[in-house]
Amino acid sequence: MKPCEEEEEEGRATAGGGGGDPWKECAEVAVQLARRAGQIIRKALTEEKQVSTKTSAADLVTETDHFVENLIISVLKEKFPSHRFIAEESTAAGSKCVLTDSPTWIIDPVDGTCNFVHRFPTVAVSIGFAVNKELEFGVIYHCTEERLYTGRRGQGAFCNDKRLQVSKETDISKALILTEIGPKRDPATLKLFLGNIERLLKAQAHGVRVIGSSTLALCHLASGAADAYYQFGLHCWDLAAATVIIREAGGTVIDTSGGPLDLMSCRVIAAGTREMAMFIAQEIQTIHYQRDDEN
Amino acid sequence: MKPCEEEEEEGRATAGGGGGDPWKECAEVAVQLARRAGQIIRKALTEEKQVSTKTSAADLVTETDHFVENLIISVLKEKFPSHRFIAEESTAAGSKCVLTDSPTWIIDPVDGTCNFVHRFPTVAVSIGFAVNKELEFGVIYHCTEERLYTGRRGQGAFCNDKRLQVSKETDISKALILTEIGPKRDPATLKLFLGNIERLLKAQAHGVRVIGSSTLALCHLASGAADAYYQFGLHCWDLAAATVIIREAGGTVIDTSGGPLDLMSCRVIAAGTREMAMFIAQEIQTIHYQRDDEN
Repeated sequence: MKPCEEEEEEGRATAGGGGGDPWKECAEVAVQLARRAGQIIRKALTEEKQVSTKTSAADLVTETDHFVENLIISVLKEKFPSHRFIAEESTAAGSKCVLTDSPTWIIDPVDGTCNFVHRFPTVAVSIGFAVNKELEFGVIYHCTEERLYTGRRGQGAFCNDKRLQVSKETDISKALILTEIGPKRDPATLKLFLGNIERLLKAQAHGVRVIGSSTLALCHLASGAADAYYQFGLHCWDLAAATVIIREAGGTVIDTSGGPLDLMSCRVIAAGTREMAMFIAQEIQTIHYQRDDEN
Repeated sequence: MKPCEEEEEEGRATAGGGGGDPWKECAEVAVQLARRAGQIIRKALTEEKQVSTKTSAADLVTETDHFVENLIISVLKEKFPSHRFIAEESTAAGSKCVLTDSPTWIIDPVDGTCNFVHRFPTVAVSIGFAVNKELEFGVIYHCTEERLYTGRRGQGAFCNDKRLQVSKETDISKALILTEIGPKRDPATLKLFLGNIERLLKAQAHGVRVIGSSTLALCHLASGAADAYYQFGLHCWDLAAATVIIREAGGTVIDTSGGPLDLMSCRVIAAGTREMAMFIAQEIQTIHYQRDDEN
């Protein structure tokens, strides 16, 4: 484990901070990288793309995903050579997805790749950071709207410097719910996915939204613009940054069973209140996905 | 029928234009009003709201819907006293929803009211204009992103002065589809709504998005960010402005049966290509809603 200050002793620049704020430089570098990656993605959004598929016909990847991930990791590796990395495209290429006690960056270079391919303007960069398996900060950049969401453990969550506060709603019949389809599209999975929406609409939820970016949906939750989010089939790089942001905005992030969040379990419920999260947990049926750390 | 130029003879200001462009002033006033309404909605988005319900527990209305509609109609009535109006909240209050040959403004003051109530930043003002039952122009303003979508018959469609062009995709397996839930939430309607999504995902569509604003979804279609949109249970004020914008961006707007669009039928398919629209028409099952002109 090597906090950012130790890097300074090795001659690297730091933005300041003392022993009480060991990850300040890391958080600042994450913001800079998210903005830089966001610019690249915003430009690429309007250009022709080479699209490949991964686990299913709906699980897409482009040159930009690879380019941005390589950029982020190469900068971070140079600044923080002892740190570890979990990132979407490296994992797809065979890297193990294991969270140790080491300082670990958890990166989704382009969240909402399907949106990106279609130029649908809901695309984000997500950079989370964990130490001793505890999430320290998260940075999510909405590339087209140029909104920067940040959260640091114990220091609050912000969108472009405005403090975020989750919804206090506990009543499903006044709730706006967010979810995502997930990559698996076999008939049984689709039945469960649609059945869960049906259950929540029958419980009189105001509405269900599907925007195509887990991280931005979770940012909407953090900002109080929705009351709950749940998903099966998302990954630790979709969750890491957003989890810090939501918790620092006063929200709850738990496993779909109602138990504690397991970052590698590929499933989540997030809500403004614990009551809302537990209601969703009781209402929805499980869709099984392989764990991130079992690949 | 009284074109804007005739209004000028009655002492009203006009932004110019001759006999070849009879609705230029009307279109310009629509842009000004959409921006003005958008500012009001943007400010109101952050404030506490009094929420009422209309046709169902999910069909919401706020003071802002009424205030903005009254503002738009009062300005237009003063400028164009012979014109007629079809607008969401006036219709809910009992006004007949009939399209005649007279110049008619078709207005949704706040599209995405449920989003608005939840501060979910996907909310629009929509102002369409028809003469001799033909749509002449449409103006849609995305209140939080400050994007202005405009389309005039024969003169193209634009977003903040950038010309819009629909997707040319004809293959469902490469398509991003947009839809909305609609106000009816009885079990049979929900089954049909979810069944239609299931059919399109089984046909290998890349994804389905539900953003909570019909007009903004249709604007995404016009900008090529999605390949098709379909809905049952939307209204003529959701469709009027967007239909001009999509057609002027090169797209197709038809009835869900595959036949010509009927603005009062509360159902629509819009797509970048006719092939895509017809595929959707064949794939989806009808959800019955009362016509706008039967209320």
